[in-house]
Amino acid sequence: MDLYGRDLLTTQDWSFDELMTALELATKMKRDRFNPRWMKVLEGRTFFMFFYNPSVRTRQSFECAATELGGHAQYLTPETMRLKTAATAGETIEDAAKVMSRYAAGIGIRILEDKVTRYGEGWELIKEYAYWATIPVSSMADDRFHPYQGLADIMGWAEWFGEGPGRPNFEALRGKKLLLTWAHGALARSWCSVQEALLIASRFGMHITLAYPEGYDLDPEVIGWVKANCAANKADFEIIHDPEAGYEGAHVVYSRNWMSPQAYEGGVFRKQEEIQKALQYPQWIVTAEKMARTDNAIFSHPMPVDRGHEVTDDVASGPRSAIYDIAENRLHVQKAVMALTMGNL
Amino acid sequence: MDLYGRDLLTTQDWSFDELMTALELATKMKRDRFNPRWMKVLEGRTFFMFFYNPSVRTRQSFECAATELGGHAQYLTPETMRLKTAATAGETIEDAAKVMSRYAAGIGIRILEDKVTRYGEGWELIKEYAYWATIPVSSMADDRFHPYQGLADIMGWAEWFGEGPGRPNFEALRGKKLLLTWAHGALARSWCSVQEALLIASRFGMHITLAYPEGYDLDPEVIGWVKANCAANKADFEIIHDPEAGYEGAHVVYSRNWMSPQAYEGGVFRKQEEIQKALQYPQWIVTAEKMARTDNAIFSHPMPVDRGHEVTDDVASGPRSAIYDIAENRLHVQKAVMALTMGNL
Amino acid sequence: MDLYGRDLLTTQDWSFDELMTALELATKMKRDRFNPRWMKVLEGRTFFMFFYNPSVRTRQSFECAATELGGHAQYLTPETMRLKTAATAGETIEDAAKVMSRYAAGIGIRILEDKVTRYGEGWELIKEYAYWATIPVSSMADDRFHPYQGLADIMGWAEWFGEGPGRPNFEALRGKKLLLTWAHGALARSWCSVQEALLIASRFGMHITLAYPEGYDLDPEVIGWVKANCAANKADFEIIHDPEAGYEGAHVVYSRNWMSPQAYEGGVFRKQEEIQKALQYPQWIVTAEKMARTDNAIFSHPMPVDRGHEVTDDVASGPRSAIYDIAENRLHVQKAVMALTMGNL
Repeated sequence: MDLYGRDLLTTQDWSFDELMTALELATKMKRDRFNPRWMKVLEGRTFFMFFYNPSVRTRQSFECAATELGGHAQYLTPETMRLKTAATAGETIEDAAKVMSRYAAGIGIRILEDKVTRYGEGWELIKEYAYWATIPVSSMADDRFHPYQGLADIMGWAEWFGEGPGRPNFEALRGKKLLLTWAHGALARSWCSVQEALLIASRFGMHITLAYPEGYDLDPEVIGWVKANCAANKADFEIIHDPEAGYEGAHVVYSRNWMSPQAYEGGVFRKQEEIQKALQYPQWIVTAEKMARTDNAIFSHPMPVDRGHEVTDDVASGPRSAIYDIAENRLHVQKAVMALTMGNL
Repeated sequence: MDLYGRDLLTTQDWSFDELMTALELATKMKRDRFNPRWMKVLEGRTFFMFFYNPSVRTRQSFECAATELGGHAQYLTPETMRLKTAATAGETIEDAAKVMSRYAAGIGIRILEDKVTRYGEGWELIKEYAYWATIPVSSMADDRFHPYQGLADIMGWAEWFGEGPGRPNFEALRGKKLLLTWAHGALARSWCSVQEALLIASRFGMHITLAYPEGYDLDPEVIGWVKANCAANKADFEIIHDPEAGYEGAHVVYSRNWMSPQAYEGGVFRKQEEIQKALQYPQWIVTAEKMARTDNAIFSHPMPVDRGHEVTDDVASGPRSAIYDIAENRLHVQKAVMALTMGNL
Repeated sequence: MDLYGRDLLTTQDWSFDELMTALELATKMKRDRFNPRWMKVLEGRTFFMFFYNPSVRTRQSFECAATELGGHAQYLTPETMRLKTAATAGETIEDAAKVMSRYAAGIGIRILEDKVTRYGEGWELIKEYAYWATIPVSSMADDRFHPYQGLADIMGWAEWFGEGPGRPNFEALRGKKLLLTWAHGALARSWCSVQEALLIASRFGMHITLAYPEGYDLDPEVIGWVKANCAANKADFEIIHDPEAGYEGAHVVYSRNWMSPQAYEGGVFRKQEEIQKALQYPQWIVTAEKMARTDNAIFSHPMPVDRGHEVTDDVASGPRSAIYDIAENRLHVQKAVMALTMGNL
C-alpha cells in the first residue's frame, strides 16, 4: 500500500484498504504517541496550512500533528497571499501552487461558509490547487467535504464499540445504526462534516438514518454515493423528517446544525437568514430523553458544540459522549495521513 | 521537588522552595543555553500561547523558549478561537480546554487591559481554563498577575547583587531595599507586573517602599499578601505618596505607569481618561538626579519602557540599568518552568 | 571566509568572494537538501521575521529555510510590536533590537510600498535595527534592496547557462546580456528587486540593457554603483526607452513593473495614481514575438507575476521560463546565508 504523494479531498476518493491503512497507523500512533519511529518522519519538512476561514481544532491539531512528526506547519491566510481575484491583480493559483510545491511537503486548505459565494466553490478551488501542485493537497474542510473529520469520527466510534481509546474495532461497526440528525443552532454550518460522516459510515457498513426538517436537503450527488455505499454493504439508508423519530435502536447519535440549500442565494452567504430560519425548529435538539430511547447510543459531534441548540449539556458532557475522544482523533488521523502521504512512512 | 503538571498563575501560589527550583534551573539554562540536556525536553510537544492581547517580549520569549526546548509554541488569538460570549454562539471554555488538553503539553494565556471589562476578569478566565484543562496552565500576564515577569525580575536583581549574568545570589537580596514607584506615562498599564514584583520581592526578604500619587491604590488583597510576606521575612513595607521620597538607601528602583482603580468604571477600559489623568503628574519620573540619592541602585523595569515618561533616557540606557538582563531572563525562567511543569525535567 | 554575525542589507555590501561562498553553499544545499550536515545548524535557534508588509514567497521560503536548518522562524508583524511612532507612545527600536538580540540568532525585516512615506525610509529603518542589534540583520525586501532575491536570480541564471538545477556555472554569465525591462501592471512595485538584480548582474560581469519609459528612472546612487560594477568588469551598461528595443542578443530577459519617482509625493504612497499611469503603457510587456528576437533568452521575474501585464502567459509558462527555479532558489540562498551568518557553518 503506497500512499506517498496522494491527495485527500474526501474519504470517498480512497479505497477501503487505503482508509484502513491510515486508520491502523493512526491507532498505533495514538497508543504510542511519541515513539521515535514517527517523531522524525517530517523532520525539516514544512506543511502549508492555508486557512481562508479561521478554525480552532483544525489549526491546533494540524500544527500539533506536524510538530509531533518532527516537521513544521506554516499558518497561511489569504491576506498574506495576494492571490488574483476577479477584482484585483495578483498571483494565479498555478503560480502559487507550483512555487509552494518547491518549498513544502504538503498543502492543506480550508475554505467554506462566508469565503465562498456558492456551494461547491471551495471544493473546486482545492481541486485547482491539487491539479497544479506536485505535492499532496488535502482538504482541511471545504463546503463539500471534511475527510479528516470523517476519519476521526469512524475511529472514535470504533473505539467506543471496541475496547476503548487506542483500541478500535472497525468490524464492530458493521450493522450498527447511525442516526445523523440536523439540529437547530446559531452558527449556520457548512455541509462538509455531516456529508463526510455519512460517506465514511456507509463505507464501514453502518445502517444510516438521516433526519432533518423539510427544506434542509444535502448535496444530492453525495447522498447518491452514500446510498450506493450502503447498498454495496447491504446496509439500510433512510431519510426522515421527524425530530422525535429514529432514536430507537440507534448506536450512534450524531447531531449538527447545517445551512439550507438556499444559503447562497444571490451569490452571498446569507448567514443571518439561515440562523433565523434554523432557530424556528427548537424541537430539533438531542436530549437525554431522546437518548434514553436508543440502544445505549454514544453521542457524536464534530465540535465546536453549540450547547443548548444542537444538544443539551447533560448529553454533551455525559458518560456516553464521544466528542472529546473524536476531537483527539483528529490529531492521530492527521499524523497518520501526513506520515503516509508526505513522509513516505 | 515534583512540579510536573503544575499551573503557575502567580508566584504567590508556589512555595519558596518551588520558586528556587525554577530559578536554579533557569540559572543553569542561562549559563549553558544550548546544552543537549534540555534541548529535547519538549521534543514534539506543543505549547499553546493564547493571546487575547498582543505582546512583544512575551510572545517572542515564549516562542523562543519552546523552540529551545525542542518543542513548538502555537500562536493563538481569540479571532481564531470562536469562543462563546454573552453576545455570540460559540464554544465553551470547558470544551476548548478539554480538547486543548488532548493536543498539547501546556497552555499560556494573556488577557488584560482592553480585553477585560473589570479588574480581575482576566485572571478569572485563566482560572476557568486551569479548572477544566488537564495540562499545566499559566498566566502570560493578566490583570492581576504576571508570574514569569516576577521570576525574571528577581533573577535579574540577584544577578546584579551577585556575580553578574548567570551568577545570581538570591540570598544577597535579603534586607535590600526596593523602591517601586508609579510613573506617569501614555500607556495606562495593568497592575500585573508591579503586583507580581511586590509579591516576589517580599518573598525574598526585601524591604519595600511603594510610591504612588493619591488615587493610584493597587489591589488591597495583593497588598495584604505583600505585607504578610514582608512580616514573615521581618522586612519593612511602607507606602508613600511623594515623588521625591524613598530613593535614599534604595538598592533597586523600579518604575512603571499603572492605571487607577477607576479605569474600568462603566464596564469598559477608559484608556484615554487614564492617560490624561496620568500625564498630570510629570514629576513622577525616575531621573539621574533621583538615582544619585540611592545606594547605587540598579534601575528595573519590565519593558516596554515609555522613555521620557517613566524614566529618562540616561537612566534607562545607563550603566546601572538592568532592563535588558531582566528581559533576557524572561526566556530563561520560562524555559525552566516549562521544562519542569510540562517536560517533567 | 568567516561570515558569522554579518548583516546582509544588499549584495553590494558583500565582496564577490563572500557572495560566492554563499552561492556555493546554496548549490550544495540544493543538490542535497536534507543532508544531516545542515539539518541541525540552527537547532533550537530562532529567526525573527518581521513583516511590515505581507508577503508570499518571502514568508514561505524563510520559514521553510529556518525549519530545514532545524530552527524556527517567528512571524512578527508591527501590530504585535507596539513600537513607538510619531503619533503614539511605544518602544524604541533601540530597546526592541537589544532585547531581540538576547532571544534570537537573527532578524529579517520587510518594509516597502505603503509602509513607508518616502523612498529610502524602509532601508533606513533596517539600518537602525542593524545598528542596535548584536545579531545579524538582513533585508527581506525594502524600498531600496532585496539581497536574497538578487542571490536567487543570479543562481537561477547560472543554472540555466550551466548544467541545470543545482549545477550552476557562474563563470558562464560573464559577457552574457541581461535585458531588464519595466513592464506595465496593476501593482505599483517597489524598486528593490530590479535594483538588486542590476547590482548582482553587474557584479558577475553581465552586459546590461535597462529599458523603461521616460519618467521611470531608478535610484541614481544605485545606478551609479551598477555602472561602476560594469566598468570594473569591462561590461556594457546602457539605458533605453523603447519597448521594442534591446531584445536582440539578449540571454536573460527580466521584466517587472515598478513605480515612478513621484510615487511618494505628498508623503504618502500614491498607489492608484501609479497604477493608472503605468497602465497607459500597454506596449511595455514581454511577448513571445519579442523573445523570438533574442539569443534564445530565458525569462526571469521575481514573482508574483502579473500575467497579461508584465509578460504574456505563453512566455511565463513557456519552456524558457526560469521563474519557478528562481523562486525555489530563494529557499536555498536563504538557507545558505542563514547557516553562514547565524549558524556559523
